[in-house]
Parts: sequence; structure tokens; C-alpha cells
Amino acid sequence: MRAVTCTDAKLEVVDLPSPRPARGQLLLEVLRCGICGSDLHARHHCDEVADITAEVGYDGMFRSSESVVLGHEFCGEVLESGPRTSRFRAGTRVVAFPLLRNGSAVHPTGLSTAAPGGYAEQILVEESLAFAVPNGLSTELATLTEPMAVGLHAVNRSQIGRGQVAVVIGCGPVGLAVIAMLKARGVRTVVASDFSAGRRALATACGADVVVDPAVESPFERTAGHGHIERAPELFELAVGSMEKLRRIPLVPWNRIYQAAEALGAATPKHPVIFECVGVPGVIDQLIAGAPLASRVVVVGVCMQPDRIRPVMAINKEIDLRFVLGYTPIEFHNALHLLADGKVKAAPVVTGSVGLAGVDEAFTALADPETHAKILIDPRSDATEPRPVSL
Amino acid sequence: MRAVTCTDAKLEVVDLPSPRPARGQLLLEVLRCGICGSDLHARHHCDEVADITAEVGYDGMFRSSESVVLGHEFCGEVLESGPRTSRFRAGTRVVAFPLLRNGSAVHPTGLSTAAPGGYAEQILVEESLAFAVPNGLSTELATLTEPMAVGLHAVNRSQIGRGQVAVVIGCGPVGLAVIAMLKARGVRTVVASDFSAGRRALATACGADVVVDPAVESPFERTAGHGHIERAPELFELAVGSMEKLRRIPLVPWNRIYQAAEALGAATPKHPVIFECVGVPGVIDQLIAGAPLASRVVVVGVCMQPDRIRPVMAINKEIDLRFVLGYTPIEFHNALHLLADGKVKAAPVVTGSVGLAGVDEAFTALADPETHAKILIDPRSDATEPRPVSL
Repeated sequence: MRAVTCTDAKLEVVDLPSPRPARGQLLLEVLRCGICGSDLHARHHCDEVADITAEVGYDGMFRSSESVVLGHEFCGEVLESGPRTSRFRAGTRVVAFPLLRNGSAVHPTGLSTAAPGGYAEQILVEESLAFAVPNGLSTELATLTEPMAVGLHAVNRSQIGRGQVAVVIGCGPVGLAVIAMLKARGVRTVVASDFSAGRRALATACGADVVVDPAVESPFERTAGHGHIERAPELFELAVGSMEKLRRIPLVPWNRIYQAAEALGAATPKHPVIFECVGVPGVIDQLIAGAPLASRVVVVGVCMQPDRIRPVMAINKEIDLRFVLGYTPIEFHNALHLLADGKVKAAPVVTGSVGLAGVDEAFTALADPETHAKILIDPRSDATEPRPVSL
Repeated sequence: MRAVTCTDAKLEVVDLPSPRPARGQLLLEVLRCGICGSDLHARHHCDEVADITAEVGYDGMFRSSESVVLGHEFCGEVLESGPRTSRFRAGTRVVAFPLLRNGSAVHPTGLSTAAPGGYAEQILVEESLAFAVPNGLSTELATLTEPMAVGLHAVNRSQIGRGQVAVVIGCGPVGLAVIAMLKARGVRTVVASDFSAGRRALATACGADVVVDPAVESPFERTAGHGHIERAPELFELAVGSMEKLRRIPLVPWNRIYQAAEALGAATPKHPVIFECVGVPGVIDQLIAGAPLASRVVVVGVCMQPDRIRPVMAINKEIDLRFVLGYTPIEFHNALHLLADGKVKAAPVVTGSVGLAGVDEAFTALADPETHAKILIDPRSDATEPRPVSL
């Protein structure tokens, strides 16, 4: 089969033997595979990622000297089912949680040489992690299950309420997935910020209520008037003022008043929830500095380099920094069904399509935010340059 | 009155005019005032703190060129009540939330020249923020209301459950306050870590169940066996394994199973909650690297310098970094009553006592963790060196 390998940051089309499904596995013909921002990152920073992942406990991430087949966002058709499988007939379209077994080990598909990815004509998946594409959902939208699951997981981990303001910083594919999932969740006000006019237009198409060019104004200005506390002196005032009010209520046991005030105080403030979807050094500290007091910052963007923060600033503002990664199998399943039920505006994310021979060109094109957000690889296509797609 | 001022990091005893209580204020005779770790920090780093606090929105923090009276942990006796006050008779012992009004502005007591602190014979406080010391609570323990409120606030913000393991890194006064409040809250397993044998002994006295010397073993090893996920491959295994188990249940709608599994999954894992109580550069990144997956890290220690973190590491482990500051008036009140009710083991924290003339010596002594944790200033004492105290 034809596939694109990445070796020493070089992408090339090669011929590889067709994979054979082991026990519990399916062999798929790849219909579409998305190019993920983390593929672009990994091409140049894979050794740093492999080192850190090894420190976390998994040492199978690919290294620059190895030849890896990238691609973990894919939709395919069942070609062959391995031993001890029974759920899917040949020809069924499926998406799959990108993990692959190898004996007792488990590897991340498209990020390890032990689990080749979807930049290829064929791919292996675990039957237990595969889901049939529900009737009527297009292959292109089904391919977005994986990035949409990333957005869903970030929204779940944020614990945002519908009445809280969401501020999404960066409107690349990850930011757009977060925006679409916030709206699918019913969050009333989603403010999206990106330097690129093209990306801001996509943010609006995915459901953002307000778009901001951070070169012109702060996204946090636009969150004003939603009841959150803006500045430290006001916080001090609040402490003094709340106590003075409490003292004026006579003939009630203090403890009861304090408890009531605490419950009230915990329920009332509507602090914004900020989603960091940029992933370059310096952004986290900028957000800590710019965010209103007591903001929750969900870090979805993957900054590969060491970064500098000012803890005193974060402490003074009582910032909550939540780092998120991936999604659970349940979130993956739910993302697929939200797409199939038409509940999430994901279509604008897809801007282009390309054949295997055009993957290198597509990587280059993705560096310009004005022209592309998500390019899908179609292994049957002979396009050597990304062609515009509008779903 | 006699007071200790800090000017250009120099501490000296000076004579200052007696303050006069304005509307709503009380004049107290200071009975005891604790020396806080943040006073030691602020002595040398006040300009950095003032800059950052100004960026947050309050520009009244003291600067090195000014003469400030430090001290925000105090217990005093009411000498005089200002206009429009009525709650306290002269002679009543009180503690107070350390904020002071000046017209429409509010300043932090002991950290601004507009609100001189408790390293003095007398101090002004807001009546609305003052609480009578409940009968029987010693002046020394009442003086611990402020640091214990810091511990209580950190525990509240951590949202720790009784069944979760708490890991407290650093057993200075802040770490000890956190330990005492975790036990007061009923958290069953508190693991405390400090390089100093003296501090570890204090941690045990404050209620820690396990103490660890991080030079000998990792505090995280001691949290094993509590059901949390240790390594990435196990996380992968879990994803595959859970789906395989789910698939084996026949004749039930998938959605219902997924929802049940999600609810179960959310309730089951007992991730540890880590309290960072050291506050020097590098510790946050060390904790991110050393902590089990999906840990919550509550940053209580105040690191004054910019710090370096590796976002990829935090992302790979889905770390939740919660920065905390201070406490609410209600938490301050509750800390006082937990002390008065004997529900919190705070007494071991106090290790010494000194007069105003010995504050400089006390700052030096506090640099050695083996001899002292918290030294209380007694303005009536003529001790020029800290004397051991055991409550």
C-alpha cells in the first residue's frame, strides 16, 4: 500500500506492505485522514515530546530518526476483520479511538512506529475501539470525530456553566472544535479571539457569538458586565462591604449568616472560563496577566517548549490552570453522535482536501491561517496540492 | 508608640505617633504578632510584588524605598473605638481581617504604608472585620487565626474529598496550617514532605499521617495503592480494557452504558491532591513531573521570581494547577472558631517569641528550618533574641 512516512522531518510517499489484522483488530481502507496541528508540531519537535512522554511513563513515541506513518484522525471502510472479531461486516464505514494493541502493550496510532497512522491507504484499528458511522453522516464530517472529541473533552474538563462566559484564545482547528462544542453544550456567550480575519470568520461559522482581533482590543474587555470581579481593590472592597452588610442584620446567629453568605458567594460570581488554544511559549503567562480575577484557564493548545510563568501573578489572581489532553472513549463516541445528530457546527473547520502525494504541500499551506484550517487527506485522490473544500 | 519599620530591607525599632481610629475603626494594643514567611519574602522582593500587584490593579503595596510597618497576623486588645463603632468594649481581645480603609480606598494591613501592621505596640483595624476572641482561646493561638485561615482557604479551594490522599510539599508554617486544616476537615490520609527533620516532626504534631524525607524517597510513592492511575500505558490499557468490558454486556442500548460508565469513571478514581507550600522557583515543574496522572496541585507557596514549567508535561498528565491567595472574611471567622473549639492542631506551629528589638534576629533565626517555624512578636517583651515557646 501507499503511505506517507515522516523521517527526520521529511515527508515522502512510500510503498509499504499491507498490514494484517491481529486478534481483535480490523483492517480499514482509509477514506479520509485529517492533518492535525500536533502532526505539524511533532514533525519538528518529536524528540522533545518523546522524552517528556517517556518521563511520564510511555517510551514508544516516535523519534526523528525513525520512519513513522502519521495520522490519528481518520474514517475508513472495513476491509478485513482479524481473529475473534464479529461486530462489523466488510464495507462498514467506521471511525476508531486511535490506540493499537501489540501483545500486552498499547500504542498511540499515528504517533508511534508500533501503530502506523492514517496517512496511508490502509490502517489497523482495535475492533473494541471502533464505532460504525451512523447513517447519513458524511465521511468528511465523521473524520472530524477525533478533533471534535478533543473539544468536547476540554469543555467537559472546564466544568463551564451555561451562564458563564467562555473566551476562546486561538481559532485553529482545536479552538474551532472548542467553540462548536461550547455552543452544542448551550453556553450562551462564546467570545473568540484570533489575529487572523479568516480564522475569525470560521469562529463565527462554528457558533462564536463575539469575535475579537487581539491586535485591536482585549478579549477580556468583551467579557465585562457579566458579574465577575475585575480588580484587586474591588476584591478588598467586597470583603469589607460584605462584612459591613452582614453586621447590620440583627438577632441572627453569626454562624448561620456566614454560612448563608458563603453559599451565596460561591454561587453568584460568574467568572469567565478561558480556553488556551494557541500552544506557543508566552501565551499562558499573557493569559494569566490579562484574565480577570479568579478565572479558570483550560490549556488545550500544546506548547512543546519550556515556558515561563509568573506564579505571583497567578496567585494574586487565584487563577486555575487546567491542562487537558485527548478524550475518553465515551467522549469520542459522544462526539461522533453529536456530529451525526447535527448538534455541532463542525463543517466550517474543513477547508481543503489533498492526495497522499500532496501532504508536504498541505503542511506548508497550513502554516498560513488565512487560507486553511483543516485539510483532509483522501488517499484515492491524486491532488498534489490542497484543493479548497466547503462542506 | 514603638514599632519596627522595614526600609530598604533594613529592620529597625523606631518611635511613631500613636494612630487615631477613624470612623468605623478600632485602635488595638498589639498583644502578639506573628512573623509570616511572606514578610521574609517581602523584605527583599517587595518591589517585584508591588509591580505585579499594580499590574493586577492595586498600586499601594509598599516599595523598598518606603518605610513600612510589617505584620498582618495579630491579636490585640481594644484601646479605643472610633466614631460610629459600637460592638467592642475597651479591653476586649480581638483578631481582625487585615484590611484597612482610607476614604474610599482599602489597603492590606502590614503590606502598605497606608495600613501599618502589627510589628508595633498599637494597630488600627476595621471594626466590621474584627472578631472577639472566644472565651478560653489563648492569645498565642488566636494570633494563628490568619495563617490558619490561609490553610483553610487552600483546603476549601482544593475541593478535596475525605477519601482522597493529600500530599503536602513543604512543612513551613503554611504547609503546617494546610496539614492541620486537612485533618480538621477529616481527610484520612495526609502525606507530608520536607527535607528538615524538625519540620517533619512538627508535621506529625499537626496531624500528618505519613512524613517523607524527599531526599530519601518520593512523597508520591507513598500515595500508591489508593486507586489512582500511575502511568500513561496504564491509561491506554484502561481505555482499551474499559471498552472491551463494555462491549461484552449484551442487549443494552450503548448510550445508556456509556453514560453509566462515565458516571462511574468520574466517581471512582481517587487522584491525590498536592499542596505546594514551598514557593521557590522550579518546585511547580518538579511537582508536575513527579505527580501521578490527573493530580490537582494547589499552589499555596508564593514564588516571587518568574518560573519555568513544561506545558507538554502538564498536558500529558492532565494536571490541574490551582493558585490560591489569602482567604475570605468567612474563612477567617471559621478559622478562629475551629481554633477556639480545639478542632485544629495549630499549637506546634509556634516555636518562639521575641520582643520588638529582636525582630531582625528572629528573621535570621527563621532561615533555619530546624529551630523555628513561627515566631510571635510580643511588643511588651524585651527579648532581643527569639526564645523557645511551646504552647
